[in-house]
Amino acid sequence: MGQALSLFESNKAEDIKMSRALIESFDKNKQAKRIAITGVPGVGKSTFIEALGEKLCGEGHKVAVLAIDPSSQKTGGAILGDKTRMEKLSRNPNAFIRPSSAGSVLGGIAKNTYQSILLCEAAGFDIILIETVGVGQSETIVQHMADFFLLLMLAGAGDELQGIKRGIMELADFVFINKAEEHNLAKAKEAMRQYRQALHLFQAKESGWNVKVEVGSALESTGLDLVWSGIKDFYKITEKNSYLSKYRESQSIALFEYFLQENILYDLQNDKGFQTKKAKSKKGIISGNKSPFDEAKDLSQLWIKKT
Amino acid sequence: MGQALSLFESNKAEDIKMSRALIESFDKNKQAKRIAITGVPGVGKSTFIEALGEKLCGEGHKVAVLAIDPSSQKTGGAILGDKTRMEKLSRNPNAFIRPSSAGSVLGGIAKNTYQSILLCEAAGFDIILIETVGVGQSETIVQHMADFFLLLMLAGAGDELQGIKRGIMELADFVFINKAEEHNLAKAKEAMRQYRQALHLFQAKESGWNVKVEVGSALESTGLDLVWSGIKDFYKITEKNSYLSKYRESQSIALFEYFLQENILYDLQNDKGFQTKKAKSKKGIISGNKSPFDEAKDLSQLWIKKT
Repeated sequence: MGQALSLFESNKAEDIKMSRALIESFDKNKQAKRIAITGVPGVGKSTFIEALGEKLCGEGHKVAVLAIDPSSQKTGGAILGDKTRMEKLSRNPNAFIRPSSAGSVLGGIAKNTYQSILLCEAAGFDIILIETVGVGQSETIVQHMADFFLLLMLAGAGDELQGIKRGIMELADFVFINKAEEHNLAKAKEAMRQYRQALHLFQAKESGWNVKVEVGSALESTGLDLVWSGIKDFYKITEKNSYLSKYRESQSIALFEYFLQENILYDLQNDKGFQTKKAKSKKGIISGNKSPFDEAKDLSQLWIKKT
Repeated sequence: MGQALSLFESNKAEDIKMSRALIESFDKNKQAKRIAITGVPGVGKSTFIEALGEKLCGEGHKVAVLAIDPSSQKTGGAILGDKTRMEKLSRNPNAFIRPSSAGSVLGGIAKNTYQSILLCEAAGFDIILIETVGVGQSETIVQHMADFFLLLMLAGAGDELQGIKRGIMELADFVFINKAEEHNLAKAKEAMRQYRQALHLFQAKESGWNVKVEVGSALESTGLDLVWSGIKDFYKITEKNSYLSKYRESQSIALFEYFLQENILYDLQNDKGFQTKKAKSKKGIISGNKSPFDEAKDLSQLWIKKT
């Protein structure tokens, strides 16, 4: 696993060739349940993932944990030292925890995460938990990769719907209100009622699945059964109505479009002739009277092949 | 003016040629004060712009009003029938009001707005007010075009800092708390105090300008003097420290980069051969075992010229 992962992250021509061959050799029918787990910092994502992962390993599953954290390169990241965070789970022989995806650009993170998913599936992991930091960018990526979107929330002080972007709430298939320990239970249940109400305002999901909202405590391992049976129900429904296979196809295409845009801009920026001509355009804009729009148009037409 | 504007919006080859020649013929030294005005719906943007415009025309200025509204094409838009909205100003011989920029894509709106600015300057307008709807997208464009960013706000019920994105607040050079009529004055002043405090948290502006916060009422034409003398001070400072000319250069380059990306993607999507190959890639991803990433990489490398 580790070797394959470093192969994926390598930029050497022969490594790239090998990693392509490796991916193409994967058995496409070996697919795992791909679960995205998100929530604001402090909601208890690590504790939750460790508790759920332990439970699933205990039931005979093989569980992989991946993380998407665009900030990890710059700041050390919100998802720090995954193995230390999930000490118990990392010692479990049926679990695989991958440290935060490397890569200084979002496209690189997306690529590494996607290839890690494929690798974990090929290696026989049947459940993949993909952790994101809830800031918006990483959710854009993960929605092209995960089947099921689990949102962790806290019962706040009155304003239950604050702190999470509406766009993220709309992605959710399951909202789990965490930290609902005894002293917090009433507040958590009130939050649950409010979320259920709020979710009625959204359109029905294309998947045919009705979003669930439940309370529980990852710390005390309560409510995890509800989450897991929700996930299983989701797969039952979406496999039966063929949504899942169609969804995965559309995800692959969306990923392709995303990578295409990334690659085009990257390839252009790395072409020497393009760079020279671009510098000339910039000069014309600043010293001459050239329009930024027209210069951009010319440059594009010179570099994009006409067929 | 009207003819030139329709020339800019035309897609005919000869019109494009003519509009380029026209833009290149403009005297670059004839530059107006370019003021962006933004705020959430209901803040009183039209009333404000009309009142400020009238005042400036009265002082002998020639004032152009442009609007950026990405939603105008789809929904009829938040900025409806500009001329009806600003009836008095539209009859003023020293004012020019341009209906919301046409264009179904953001790139088109940006292009039209930018070329309109150049045209208005060439036609002798010395003040250009660019109205945006405060939703984020249009502010991204306008920050590449305006010198000075005026944010209109309301004194809310306690939570003065809600409802406007932090990113937009950071762009502001001047915050004007509108609708501060007699019955609302105390609240407005309290909001002013809070904004002044909040703005202290931001970094000092590169322009050397200190953000101002004032209260007033566009309806009663109060506070407009404060806004106008603020604008004049801003130009005094930024012309003296050479910030303005450097800033405009960097804006042109940013616009160029923006248009370049738009054009590249547009040109590619409109190439038949690219379309065919792309369709083949999609098929390989869905039916074969091809990786979205690798297919994207191949496609990009085929279409981007190597030099």
